[in-house]
Amino acid sequence: MRKVAVVGVGHSKFGRRADATYCEIAFEAVKEALEDVGITQKDLELSVVGSVGNRLYDMYPAPMLNEYVGLASKGPLRVEAACATGSAAVFTAYNAVSSGYVNSAIAIGVEKMSEVDTPTSTAVGGRGCYLWEFHMFGTSFAAYYALFATAHMRRYGTTEEQLAKVAVKNHFYAARNPKAHFQNEITLEQALKSRIVCWPLKLYDCCPISDGAAAVILTSEEKVKELKVEDPVWIQAVGFGSDSGNHTRRDDFTSIKSAKMASQLAYKTAKIGPEDVEVAEVHDCFTIAEIIAYEDLGFCKKGYGGKLIDEGETSIGGKIPVNVDGGLKAKGHPLGATGCSMIYELVKQLRNEAGNRQVPIKKGIGLAHNVGMTGQYCYVIILKK
Amino acid sequence: MRKVAVVGVGHSKFGRRADATYCEIAFEAVKEALEDVGITQKDLELSVVGSVGNRLYDMYPAPMLNEYVGLASKGPLRVEAACATGSAAVFTAYNAVSSGYVNSAIAIGVEKMSEVDTPTSTAVGGRGCYLWEFHMFGTSFAAYYALFATAHMRRYGTTEEQLAKVAVKNHFYAARNPKAHFQNEITLEQALKSRIVCWPLKLYDCCPISDGAAAVILTSEEKVKELKVEDPVWIQAVGFGSDSGNHTRRDDFTSIKSAKMASQLAYKTAKIGPEDVEVAEVHDCFTIAEIIAYEDLGFCKKGYGGKLIDEGETSIGGKIPVNVDGGLKAKGHPLGATGCSMIYELVKQLRNEAGNRQVPIKKGIGLAHNVGMTGQYCYVIILKK
Repeated sequence: MRKVAVVGVGHSKFGRRADATYCEIAFEAVKEALEDVGITQKDLELSVVGSVGNRLYDMYPAPMLNEYVGLASKGPLRVEAACATGSAAVFTAYNAVSSGYVNSAIAIGVEKMSEVDTPTSTAVGGRGCYLWEFHMFGTSFAAYYALFATAHMRRYGTTEEQLAKVAVKNHFYAARNPKAHFQNEITLEQALKSRIVCWPLKLYDCCPISDGAAAVILTSEEKVKELKVEDPVWIQAVGFGSDSGNHTRRDDFTSIKSAKMASQLAYKTAKIGPEDVEVAEVHDCFTIAEIIAYEDLGFCKKGYGGKLIDEGETSIGGKIPVNVDGGLKAKGHPLGATGCSMIYELVKQLRNEAGNRQVPIKKGIGLAHNVGMTGQYCYVIILKK
Repeated sequence: MRKVAVVGVGHSKFGRRADATYCEIAFEAVKEALEDVGITQKDLELSVVGSVGNRLYDMYPAPMLNEYVGLASKGPLRVEAACATGSAAVFTAYNAVSSGYVNSAIAIGVEKMSEVDTPTSTAVGGRGCYLWEFHMFGTSFAAYYALFATAHMRRYGTTEEQLAKVAVKNHFYAARNPKAHFQNEITLEQALKSRIVCWPLKLYDCCPISDGAAAVILTSEEKVKELKVEDPVWIQAVGFGSDSGNHTRRDDFTSIKSAKMASQLAYKTAKIGPEDVEVAEVHDCFTIAEIIAYEDLGFCKKGYGGKLIDEGETSIGGKIPVNVDGGLKAKGHPLGATGCSMIYELVKQLRNEAGNRQVPIKKGIGLAHNVGMTGQYCYVIILKK
């Protein structure tokens, strides 16, 4: 495989973006990514749009979006992998560059979730196949992650306080990320006293409904030299996993099988282990998902995720800082954008450009973990400066 | 780029498939493709689903579909490019094999268009961005292709009879294709007397609303040897083009710019010209689209598409047989399936397995041309035996 570098990243403000259209939000990210490299649209050969795009008038969102951002002649498709859509866009662009089909490509992840046909239809999972995947009628995403939480609590003694600590940590860092949806710190007490959504998950255990976009520019090694990029960040590995959508077929609710598959593949390809990762972005759609991610990624032993957050090991200064941009939980989770947003943050960190949320970087290795639905998909991408 | 071969193809019956679900239709195609190579799902490393998938309960169609066909652990995404979705799936799988990310992949194109939320919502274009792409409120796909037809008639003297001859030819071949939606031949008189949908396009100038699936298995050269595939068909080139969705920005209504871009790129990559193509599958969503395709692909000079059909040059025995499986017009056009169905037919033709619709093959070169919407996308794929 040809080497592929991330040479530019861009990120819109995440949040309730009543001030901007779907295309305008995407352009914020694309513009910043182009300026980050110092190129224009002419230097790009391929655009891959990652978007769930369920507004009634953007069933085919890519042509309009590509045209608006100045890439009308370069965008032949949209990709979708539910909440892992942004990573699927990076994966698709990565293969097109790695194969030699093109020397440069952009992955654009975007969602305007405040404008879906019914505001929470996507978020509550009502649009999956409920007969197979959500076999208890009316079961929502929060309810499924509550099952994960109660299973983890029962088997490993994980506590509501530990879940709340994930929310407190991620709000703390979101308050230091000007692009995050939420800019406020919260206390443990606030988190624990927030209203119950689906026990043990409370309001502060759940990520919000956000609008936003992020963009990632990938090039071949040859193009890195041609553009004289000074700070390329290399894609060391892209691992994926996928699994049954039917929860009665899952072996276990304390782990996500597709995430273990994806991370094992990624570690093997990159020839590293979890101990080499210096900064990680993980899929904390609910606080329990971050704790399970610690374990699935090998940042701690199985069952010790709660202890890891208790001991502050996933904050800056700890063993493995996680979601220091606020995570899905507090930065926001515009489905198509999330996977690209993770790459944005890792690139900023590995370049030492993350300002007051900078993690100390030595080996220069970062990892992104992006789950679709409740584990139907997972991508794990490893970057190295 | 690593060489990539098509080693297996499968195709469901196209038509009104009230007898089968979305997943069952896909499985018909996947099963046939696996049997075509003599392998099982275990031999595949990656599944790419191509589907517009607009039923209310399959906003995320890939997990359920992959699981049903026995590929739950191998399907990390869905791709969409409107009517060119099937080609986008082949493109995505092709890059993943060509890059070396995997050695084998399957592209599965599927649609159940008789089960969309409103039966013709997709087909009439009501789901594009009507403010930008369909700027005359209420304008449908048929109306846009009628604009193409009247522009072509005015400038080049193309006639309603010539349009009808495309329908007659494609029905003739569909009647010889057991997988086609329509199994009946029609007369020129029938076509010309059919009711007007949007003048000059009549009922028989329009493709039907069909359900169906097709699957294409791709492997690396190494895997071709390992599996001892006797009759690989090689992908010589994949060209793509894309263009504005706003029709007021199009230079011309007698040609599709993205199709010219895609074919020029494909011919250049494959180092061949249109004269080398022995069998072609083109995107005849409306009869005028086939005539324009003849010209955009260089099978005749600009403006001579009507003459080409008059002279029978696009039937078997002619200079360049086109759509001898019935085309979208009479075989049917289940959006996600169409691009994969084109590859199915070319592979059958290049292997001399097309029975009573077999084209004489010498050089072993076939071409597929798959347009999305009214030219927002186009893929041109060249195969060689």
